[in-house]
Amino acid sequence: MCGIIGVENNENASVLASAGLLTLQHRGEESAGITVSGKEKMKTFKSMGLVSRIFNDEILLNKLPGTAAIGHVRYTTSSKSSLINAQPFQINCIHGNISVAHNGNITNFPQIKEMLLKKGAIFNHTSDTEILLHLIAMSKGSLANIVANSMRKLEGAFSLVILKDRTLIGARDENGFRPLVLGKIANSYIISSESSAVEVIGGKYIRDIKPGEIIMIENGRIKKSFLYKKPKKQNTCIFEQVYFSRSDSIVFGQTVKEARVKMGEYLAQQMKNIKADIVMPVPDTGYFAALGFSRASNILFENGFVRNHYVGRSFIKPSQTLRDLTASLKLRPIKEVVYGKEIVLIDDSIVRGTTSKRLINILKEVGVKKIHFALSCPPIISSCYYGIDTPSKEHLIAANNSIEEMRKYLSVDSLTFLTLDNLVKACSFSSKKDDVFCAACFTGKYPTKISKNTYKEDC
Amino acid sequence: MCGIIGVENNENASVLASAGLLTLQHRGEESAGITVSGKEKMKTFKSMGLVSRIFNDEILLNKLPGTAAIGHVRYTTSSKSSLINAQPFQINCIHGNISVAHNGNITNFPQIKEMLLKKGAIFNHTSDTEILLHLIAMSKGSLANIVANSMRKLEGAFSLVILKDRTLIGARDENGFRPLVLGKIANSYIISSESSAVEVIGGKYIRDIKPGEIIMIENGRIKKSFLYKKPKKQNTCIFEQVYFSRSDSIVFGQTVKEARVKMGEYLAQQMKNIKADIVMPVPDTGYFAALGFSRASNILFENGFVRNHYVGRSFIKPSQTLRDLTASLKLRPIKEVVYGKEIVLIDDSIVRGTTSKRLINILKEVGVKKIHFALSCPPIISSCYYGIDTPSKEHLIAANNSIEEMRKYLSVDSLTFLTLDNLVKACSFSSKKDDVFCAACFTGKYPTKISKNTYKEDC
Amino acid sequence: MCGIIGVENNENASVLASAGLLTLQHRGEESAGITVSGKEKMKTFKSMGLVSRIFNDEILLNKLPGTAAIGHVRYTTSSKSSLINAQPFQINCIHGNISVAHNGNITNFPQIKEMLLKKGAIFNHTSDTEILLHLIAMSKGSLANIVANSMRKLEGAFSLVILKDRTLIGARDENGFRPLVLGKIANSYIISSESSAVEVIGGKYIRDIKPGEIIMIENGRIKKSFLYKKPKKQNTCIFEQVYFSRSDSIVFGQTVKEARVKMGEYLAQQMKNIKADIVMPVPDTGYFAALGFSRASNILFENGFVRNHYVGRSFIKPSQTLRDLTASLKLRPIKEVVYGKEIVLIDDSIVRGTTSKRLINILKEVGVKKIHFALSCPPIISSCYYGIDTPSKEHLIAANNSIEEMRKYLSVDSLTFLTLDNLVKACSFSSKKDDVFCAACFTGKYPTKISKNTYKEDC
Amino acid sequence: MCGIIGVENNENASVLASAGLLTLQHRGEESAGITVSGKEKMKTFKSMGLVSRIFNDEILLNKLPGTAAIGHVRYTTSSKSSLINAQPFQINCIHGNISVAHNGNITNFPQIKEMLLKKGAIFNHTSDTEILLHLIAMSKGSLANIVANSMRKLEGAFSLVILKDRTLIGARDENGFRPLVLGKIANSYIISSESSAVEVIGGKYIRDIKPGEIIMIENGRIKKSFLYKKPKKQNTCIFEQVYFSRSDSIVFGQTVKEARVKMGEYLAQQMKNIKADIVMPVPDTGYFAALGFSRASNILFENGFVRNHYVGRSFIKPSQTLRDLTASLKLRPIKEVVYGKEIVLIDDSIVRGTTSKRLINILKEVGVKKIHFALSCPPIISSCYYGIDTPSKEHLIAANNSIEEMRKYLSVDSLTFLTLDNLVKACSFSSKKDDVFCAACFTGKYPTKISKNTYKEDC
Repeated sequence: MCGIIGVENNENASVLASAGLLTLQHRGEESAGITVSGKEKMKTFKSMGLVSRIFNDEILLNKLPGTAAIGHVRYTTSSKSSLINAQPFQINCIHGNISVAHNGNITNFPQIKEMLLKKGAIFNHTSDTEILLHLIAMSKGSLANIVANSMRKLEGAFSLVILKDRTLIGARDENGFRPLVLGKIANSYIISSESSAVEVIGGKYIRDIKPGEIIMIENGRIKKSFLYKKPKKQNTCIFEQVYFSRSDSIVFGQTVKEARVKMGEYLAQQMKNIKADIVMPVPDTGYFAALGFSRASNILFENGFVRNHYVGRSFIKPSQTLRDLTASLKLRPIKEVVYGKEIVLIDDSIVRGTTSKRLINILKEVGVKKIHFALSCPPIISSCYYGIDTPSKEHLIAANNSIEEMRKYLSVDSLTFLTLDNLVKACSFSSKKDDVFCAACFTGKYPTKISKNTYKEDC
Repeated sequence: MCGIIGVENNENASVLASAGLLTLQHRGEESAGITVSGKEKMKTFKSMGLVSRIFNDEILLNKLPGTAAIGHVRYTTSSKSSLINAQPFQINCIHGNISVAHNGNITNFPQIKEMLLKKGAIFNHTSDTEILLHLIAMSKGSLANIVANSMRKLEGAFSLVILKDRTLIGARDENGFRPLVLGKIANSYIISSESSAVEVIGGKYIRDIKPGEIIMIENGRIKKSFLYKKPKKQNTCIFEQVYFSRSDSIVFGQTVKEARVKMGEYLAQQMKNIKADIVMPVPDTGYFAALGFSRASNILFENGFVRNHYVGRSFIKPSQTLRDLTASLKLRPIKEVVYGKEIVLIDDSIVRGTTSKRLINILKEVGVKKIHFALSCPPIISSCYYGIDTPSKEHLIAANNSIEEMRKYLSVDSLTFLTLDNLVKACSFSSKKDDVFCAACFTGKYPTKISKNTYKEDC
Repeated sequence: MCGIIGVENNENASVLASAGLLTLQHRGEESAGITVSGKEKMKTFKSMGLVSRIFNDEILLNKLPGTAAIGHVRYTTSSKSSLINAQPFQINCIHGNISVAHNGNITNFPQIKEMLLKKGAIFNHTSDTEILLHLIAMSKGSLANIVANSMRKLEGAFSLVILKDRTLIGARDENGFRPLVLGKIANSYIISSESSAVEVIGGKYIRDIKPGEIIMIENGRIKKSFLYKKPKKQNTCIFEQVYFSRSDSIVFGQTVKEARVKMGEYLAQQMKNIKADIVMPVPDTGYFAALGFSRASNILFENGFVRNHYVGRSFIKPSQTLRDLTASLKLRPIKEVVYGKEIVLIDDSIVRGTTSKRLINILKEVGVKKIHFALSCPPIISSCYYGIDTPSKEHLIAANNSIEEMRKYLSVDSLTFLTLDNLVKACSFSSKKDDVFCAACFTGKYPTKISKNTYKEDC
Repeated sequence: MCGIIGVENNENASVLASAGLLTLQHRGEESAGITVSGKEKMKTFKSMGLVSRIFNDEILLNKLPGTAAIGHVRYTTSSKSSLINAQPFQINCIHGNISVAHNGNITNFPQIKEMLLKKGAIFNHTSDTEILLHLIAMSKGSLANIVANSMRKLEGAFSLVILKDRTLIGARDENGFRPLVLGKIANSYIISSESSAVEVIGGKYIRDIKPGEIIMIENGRIKKSFLYKKPKKQNTCIFEQVYFSRSDSIVFGQTVKEARVKMGEYLAQQMKNIKADIVMPVPDTGYFAALGFSRASNILFENGFVRNHYVGRSFIKPSQTLRDLTASLKLRPIKEVVYGKEIVLIDDSIVRGTTSKRLINILKEVGVKKIHFALSCPPIISSCYYGIDTPSKEHLIAANNSIEEMRKYLSVDSLTFLTLDNLVKACSFSSKKDDVFCAACFTGKYPTKISKNTYKEDC
């Protein structure tokens, strides 16, 4: 789970890139970085932490001069967090200086790394992204050929932005697992993980980069755009719409917000026999589904939680008693809203089940009468190999328990998951076929071959 | 605009105080501080910045040992920001070590300061709070008498927490302008600006500190509680419910959230002739009023803005063109929601009018058809002398323009302010009389004498 | 032990003050601060740490605009270290804004504080300096009278700089314990703890501020200069020349360096029967005395230690074994220089004796044959009440042991202290009488009345 | 100009490495880093700045667990300063995780890099050190063979420490340009740029690593030690003794301090016709030569400068007038010592001549009568390709001016350079032949082939 952005042909390349990263910050809070080129030598600045803490006037204007830029925000589990894997990765090779930022998971990373190690390659990072740089450095021919040849060797999920001199390159794996869009602002093209990042900085969304496509942009013009690999049937990650993408990003002609409202409407259909006083979301991701549920069911929409956005990760936890404070500091039920009520509680999904259980407990403590818990996606029964940091199967509650078992564990009065059919309908604006999505986390049917040796890492 | 908290008879006094301040952070983001006592010598730690950045394990557990604590978060306009006025103020005087944290505005500060200066007092701060410490130091008698005598000399708005050894004191001016509540957690009493801070840390709200009341607590027991001054008719600030308080805080037996929903309902009554496709809030304070409006009007509730909570004050503004980015980085309309629509837009209030104008422009740029702008309070025509940082009269748009002039300036199709009657009804759960509120900002009728020499400072 | 500086009538007042503080940094490393006035409102910036870490372009030029400035560096024992007592102290009182920086120890601080507390004064600091500000605030009359009246009430040791608007005031107690000099650079007067600070910033030393003198300077002219108290016979601290002052500062017409060379020469006379291969200093303060010893004795001067100036206080000490590293990291004997040699080792003084013992052990470990340990002052047998941070009597090794006992404890072959007569001769360039010095630490004869109630604090 | 250290078989490997780096800090103040292995996965921590600021308890004990460690301090000109080239360089390759720290200059870097680029190698740094890692990764066979084969391809000056698992490797080029010594502490071997770093941390100097030698150490035993390349006649850098090494480090059986004393003695011989009142050093490097000069000439040794060790690079320079302050803040002449005197001023060397000229001016300003300027090495007429950061020939004053021209430029009464013969005699304790030194900077005779394509970089 990462976010990437590329800007070209713009005097404020680093500023636009940082503004884009700020809009993509929900895709990764661990580290952020920007590479610039086009004026002086290619330069990269990256650090652990939030975009707004890393980039400022001094750094953007003085230390990152350039007319082209790529940027990256990275999500990682804390145990692995380290500056060493912060992106973009900038290198020097036979083709000159090149920098890459990556969102996804290269499933044949260990096999290619093994091959590269045998050839004498050295690795400065532990991330799968580095192999692409090695493949590029070992390829010959035009820049287009070099990138295409290198990417053909990769398997799995990867949306990429690559910077070389004044050329910005965008590319996407042949399944199109992770999103990548093309936009434009004045004479500059933008490539971004989400359309909202294009629009927030004043640009217009043009189209998605296609699965299997490489696009090369220079001086405000698309120099080349081609399929480096025959596209498979599209397998865009459906979970982007359930949870990951920003609500104003556009997917398949509708905003994510609109898809989420429909998820709630379909949930209301599924639960039409349920009577409740109010429907309320788990902030912030359950919000639009709850709104949709209310519209379709005519059950009163309420906001029964107060979320404190000031509470960061740094707050202390000196003892178990006090550690419990942190949860209610972040999210606190409004007793007056929920006391004695029968409620429909809407969240996006259940992974391990522990967070949901804690929230439900908090609600019961303030006197909720009945809880109908509804999720805007099906049970997650399989781990993701395409860039979402889901845990392995043994930690997925739905992979090891029946719905009734989960209901008992969570101590709710009913437990409803949106069906895959309804989820697909909610996401497909224009009656597209269901094969346009990857729903492997719900079905276990992986669009690519997955074996014991398949690599899985976040980002 | 500040927030205060006091904790006593608790081994984790500093931790609970910091958790309380975190919940009161919306009342002031400029500086934060905590004083402890009861174990070692009284100690104070304070700094510029957010609570979560200032306090951590090391500081709370090692540097702030104590069984009693008071804390403060401070709001100031940037031009005056400086560590020198961060609270609490800890001093040594004839009565020993004493620390004070204050929310309000002492209107006769200059007169008392003048008197104190003549007596040879020295001032280490530029804040009005310091005079109370001087008055205390110059008083004689029991602790109760000392505090009472000192407070009798103050005019204006002040809710206070005072710490001396193991004694926690709470006090409120005789009009009760600013809120102050009493709560309890196990064997510890809590005093806080808002009930939510009591409840978030696991305590129970007991009652409001009364106008003109001083309460003295020690070792888990209320030692003394008395009226140091005859209370006036209560003049609790009604703007706390319109904008300032957290939505889950309780005022007059109902949550602020509930009052805001009703404000929306009354607005819907006022605007019953208006037809619109959707009603949407300006995030986050217009939220509940918009919900109430929708319920009462049956106009569809929508969320047409995406707010980015990652965008802080530190982000750069290198040029006018790029400065404009910051606004849409923080708040961006979802085009799909608003395009071609006739909307009711709900915000809490208009002060200068500039922020509203910018938001309305942004909405028009993405194609809104018609905007009916509604505010959940009357026009603000007078500056506040009781602790809210409103600008002086010449900068208040409603003080200098008719509603029609404002409508034209804002370029909206209609402009509606909640009437004072309706606001009062929304805030008074149990049909209380209108004299329980101060509404001077809307009426210009100040409950205390206001002259040219009246002091006005924020906090 | 602190250092103070004042600058007036200079566009670069804050820059000159910070440069002066940098030159006085050896007088205190704990905190540093500067107050400015004369342009905008009086402002103070202070922080814990070294001058070069606290003050930079941004702070000096943008945050400290002014034509007059006073500055302070503070030494404290770590247990008391806290920003609360960092100086200068800036206050507002009936006379306006005033700031003070102080070097010394006010021996009747508790008595005056008691009196002030009874009058209702409040104390924001725990330092003795604050009482002067109270006394000033309570005085009436011209600025000269106010300061003079206030200072007349103080007993003990105090050299002061005071800033009010464009007026810089310097003052010294009637014994003249701590140094204070007047200098000039172009049209600006400078007041400083040491002449070297005047000269380093390009100024010329003019004269010492006299014991009991107040000098008031404004717009480049001495407005007034008078004795506020009848001077006692001068009691300048002789330890300034033994250890505390910078070697290029001028005292009584000679540099401190010159006095130290003479101390060594007299030591050589005292030890003329001793035969040794080399004489070597403990860096850096024994340096000039060792040079003088070598010249007078014709014993070869050697430098047998390497001192590492990079080793700061922050370096870690994870275990006893590794803690021992810190000593040799800071100061390491050169084996080739000392192996098998009979040496004269010169240090300035012995306080507790523990540091000397450790150094002597280190020398023995690398094979020194014999050590004749010589000190350039007499045994310290009494604690200082005039601003030097000597421990109380029970911790002074010479107060509790004979010279022979000390020799045994230190395991040296001989132990010689410079006699007081010789020390006085070394320090008095122009055959002045011995009454110009305070030598209470060597004699126990205090020039002022000292009782159990006498206050003693560092700085 | 850099410093390196290696420690193995020690529970406190990271602590000892950091203590060693602190002792080598004079070899580079720009950045510092440490790699550890032997316990958990190999880890590297590095940062810009001084050792004492980078490493602390938390980092050494918690973040750098290991039984073996290598460390590096780096000097660079500010224009190139960047974290990207901070060492050690840790990589993963076919042989596992390997880390390298390097002192020297690989003269055929561009040629090898070109070859590696053609093979498809990627470069993450801009430093010459990285090519060694590539050569290692591409080699096959035993660890000894891999390192030997790789090093055989390198030309120029390089002393290296390499870490792999529990094996510490030290290696030196076949000319032995840069120093590298072997030491031992209890059961742990130490490898270090200078013997003083071994001894400061409690170890014993054993011997120099030989030119052309690779030494492999594991678990407290030397596993292997061999010449990977036939050693050339030794070409140890003579400038290490003139200026660069710490005075207590041992070279050729004598401390650097002793060599410097002799340089002064030979200078006195060369200048026996000169009459002067005093001889004084430029602090701190001229110190021992001045002492030797005084001993041999019987001219009085004096210390005429006060050096302020608190003055760092961070101090401000707001205008030309004030910029001049910085020089005298750092180094200030004691007027009383030098006024009206005829002096011999001793410095180690002249590079550009600008610093010397400024010092001489300062001395003249305070009234020196005559200056005989003496340098403890010959004129520097050629740039160094073996790791010393001398500027190119056009900036070397002695390469472009006769001695008389330099004397006039510096405005001194006489100018004397130590002859190469005398320098060699001073440095050669046991009458070794002159071929044991590289003196290319004085002679222009480079021990290796130097052409236009020869690479020259600092460190």
